[in-house]
Amino acid sequence: MGDVATGSVPLVELWRGGRLESVHRGHAVICDSRGVVEAWGDPAAVIYPRSSCKMIQALPLLESGAAATLDPRRLALACASHQGSAMHVAAVRDWLADMGLSEADLRCGTHEPGDIPERNRLICSGDSACQLHNNCSGKHTGFLMLNQHLRGGSEYVEADHPVQKAVKAAFEDVTGEASPGYGIDGCSAPNFATSIGGLARGMARFANAQETDARGRAMVRLRSAMAAHPDMVAGESRACTELMRVMDGVAIKTGAEAVFVAILPTRGLGVALKIADGGTRAAEAAIVAILARLGALDPAHPMARKRLGAPQANWRGKVWGELRLAQGFC
Amino acid sequence: MGDVATGSVPLVELWRGGRLESVHRGHAVICDSRGVVEAWGDPAAVIYPRSSCKMIQALPLLESGAAATLDPRRLALACASHQGSAMHVAAVRDWLADMGLSEADLRCGTHEPGDIPERNRLICSGDSACQLHNNCSGKHTGFLMLNQHLRGGSEYVEADHPVQKAVKAAFEDVTGEASPGYGIDGCSAPNFATSIGGLARGMARFANAQETDARGRAMVRLRSAMAAHPDMVAGESRACTELMRVMDGVAIKTGAEAVFVAILPTRGLGVALKIADGGTRAAEAAIVAILARLGALDPAHPMARKRLGAPQANWRGKVWGELRLAQGFC
Repeated sequence: MGDVATGSVPLVELWRGGRLESVHRGHAVICDSRGVVEAWGDPAAVIYPRSSCKMIQALPLLESGAAATLDPRRLALACASHQGSAMHVAAVRDWLADMGLSEADLRCGTHEPGDIPERNRLICSGDSACQLHNNCSGKHTGFLMLNQHLRGGSEYVEADHPVQKAVKAAFEDVTGEASPGYGIDGCSAPNFATSIGGLARGMARFANAQETDARGRAMVRLRSAMAAHPDMVAGESRACTELMRVMDGVAIKTGAEAVFVAILPTRGLGVALKIADGGTRAAEAAIVAILARLGALDPAHPMARKRLGAPQANWRGKVWGELRLAQGFC
Repeated sequence: MGDVATGSVPLVELWRGGRLESVHRGHAVICDSRGVVEAWGDPAAVIYPRSSCKMIQALPLLESGAAATLDPRRLALACASHQGSAMHVAAVRDWLADMGLSEADLRCGTHEPGDIPERNRLICSGDSACQLHNNCSGKHTGFLMLNQHLRGGSEYVEADHPVQKAVKAAFEDVTGEASPGYGIDGCSAPNFATSIGGLARGMARFANAQETDARGRAMVRLRSAMAAHPDMVAGESRACTELMRVMDGVAIKTGAEAVFVAILPTRGLGVALKIADGGTRAAEAAIVAILARLGALDPAHPMARKRLGAPQANWRGKVWGELRLAQGFC
């Protein structure tokens, strides 16, 4: 297996005044049920999927039977990097309350919400952000629901906790690889490394899942919940939300350090990409390019062009340049 | 001349859980009065210096005699990417008023201030940000002061305006190269392209300047003003401010899309670097590494370690990794 630096290729460029200003290298892989269909860079490059693999991390919650009756909005929230809007905070709080739990049971930590109205409300009211605002609080509430079922201890983010052992087993099974190790994610949970090809293979398994067994039923429920509730997966102005709204049944998910994945059920395809430098703007442009190439997204739609193709303007509305795909990519 | 993508080398890496997660490539050049002393990547790579060249853009203001009595705080502000704190806004407003001008004469556009207390005040009071908050409003006020002297028209950011013609002449003279063209900057002013080696050569000229002619006097005044008033050049928590405070007479300046320059008068050295992907965290880590290598900055100082060397911790204080220099750099 290579690392993220080795074998990367230019994917996205920033142009200003007719001249290349910045360039983003990376790796991108499209898989079907049999394996790699198309790739740029090195499918064997090892990456941390970060939040892009939340639908994999949610599998044990469903396969265990712990979430047999969980509604699709909460399933979407378990796969979300939400932005801590009032709606997201209330949804997580209610879900915890329904389990007899509270914010204090979370182990994701606290950060200021990305949602501007909620951020402003906190600033002006003097209220403090809490763990409910953490973009991963839905995933963690899913961990807590699984933990109630497993009767594990309170420190459910430890790598040797039954919750994380179940996550690791599902992760390795779905990616088809033994993970070479894990890192601590921003939310304190272990994040298992995999090859970018393994992550794409996992997304293809979600895309091709059939409701014939527990794994297949879990995958179909999760991908369907994400596609049906894009507002729960991220939030207003965010790429995951805005792009899923204008596609039909396609689930996509971003991860920190510029990872992006897509699940395309009608085409039976899975996608994973990683920008080597961690630049989010390039990950968004690259997933738009791939979704358009696969016929899942109209590249002329304003939500697509916002990420790739629209002229970039400054504070006075003067156009200064644009993002472009690098030669040889898509 | 090459472009930013060609000939770049790995400079800064992000490690998580003992594994490379992301990597930043780029170009870095150290010059003395005779030319390149040391380089990583390609000194001929063409870049936009963006805000890193504000001290060059301020030269005509001084050399024209328009700023003969301008105090050092305002000189520093002319070279600043300030964060729109109450102090910065008041300083720009007062400077404009002393010229009989106002915020309406600026052509930099409006953006939300980076300064958190001022941002919060605006949010909670319902006041709107104005052009004074723009990080370039000091540079633009310098343009306006030159413009009064030159008796030019009001649209001083147009490329064919006498102000920008004077800036271009100074820029090409100091970098020692004909600029291959310009792009429109975030603040609407033309930003002239140059090689990264040319930018480093320009910084070396600032470092070696003597007060024997108008150019030399202007360079000494500007580099001294920046080093003496680091709070005016950026603001609290910002790299330029925090690092200049702990160095002796060294002027440094960041630019958008991950450019960083340094002027080291006692060593007679100039530095310029560009991270190819535009990642600011890597530009800050790289300039810390070079300043430490040149003996200008203690790499163990908390303000240095904040940018390179300190363990990275998440929202719950758990350490997950660190930034490292790539093999072969510094």
